[in-house]
Amino acid sequence: MQDTSLKKISVGQSSQRSTTITSSMIEDFAKISGDYNPVHLDDEYAASTRFGQRIAHGMLLPGLISAILANDLPGPGTIYLEQTISFKAPVFIGDTVIVSVECKEVLEKSRVSFKTTVAKSDGTIVMDGEALVITPLLK
Amino acid sequence: MQDTSLKKISVGQSSQRSTTITSSMIEDFAKISGDYNPVHLDDEYAASTRFGQRIAHGMLLPGLISAILANDLPGPGTIYLEQTISFKAPVFIGDTVIVSVECKEVLEKSRVSFKTTVAKSDGTIVMDGEALVITPLLK
Repeated sequence: MQDTSLKKISVGQSSQRSTTITSSMIEDFAKISGDYNPVHLDDEYAASTRFGQRIAHGMLLPGLISAILANDLPGPGTIYLEQTISFKAPVFIGDTVIVSVECKEVLEKSRVSFKTTVAKSDGTIVMDGEALVITPLLK
Repeated sequence: MQDTSLKKISVGQSSQRSTTITSSMIEDFAKISGDYNPVHLDDEYAASTRFGQRIAHGMLLPGLISAILANDLPGPGTIYLEQTISFKAPVFIGDTVIVSVECKEVLEKSRVSFKTTVAKSDGTIVMDGEALVITPLLK
């Protein structure tokens, strides 16, 4: 039986979302993760660090990649198998980040790999890596 | 100059946190990530899937690992460089997960790698992978 879902995705196909990082996203992420590090939450403390201001939790960013994979490309029904993450630069409150996924390889058993990137609007890469997913089958 | 921070961490040293996954954690994660996939949010829809009930966003789990690395071991001042993630099994609302980090290697330039694991209380591994961080220097 032909796996028709594979017709939907080809190498180079991509999807993007743009998100502005807010203080309340960081506060909610602290609540979920239990990471109340003051560099994320305390303006005064953060001003004394190398960053000079509060930074977002790095692990907030892969959530944005997950959202594209699960909602846009491949879309609903996608099963997330693996993700590699390399953090490159801090993200500050008010930064707009462009989150991109681009199909790298279409593999056996409906598996597809994606290049995954998060960049600031000035082009600075803040995170990159690769995802491996199982694409949903068409019904 | 000797890097005294490395004295604090040795191979095999580990830290754990236990967290019970709640509906509000999942709702908050949806809000942050923009991932409103009904398998995470809609009881009726989720009942019709292979999972039979709502599941947590997979990417919620690495946030728990991040919290241990940044708060417990190595602790405040840690800089997160890399993380690999392999998702193994779904996590349901009410599941208690045990999140573990264990020092794998102490490397040059204050870098340390950790085995990172998330398991259910019955021992089922739901996520594993490795982290690479820069340890904080003692002041």
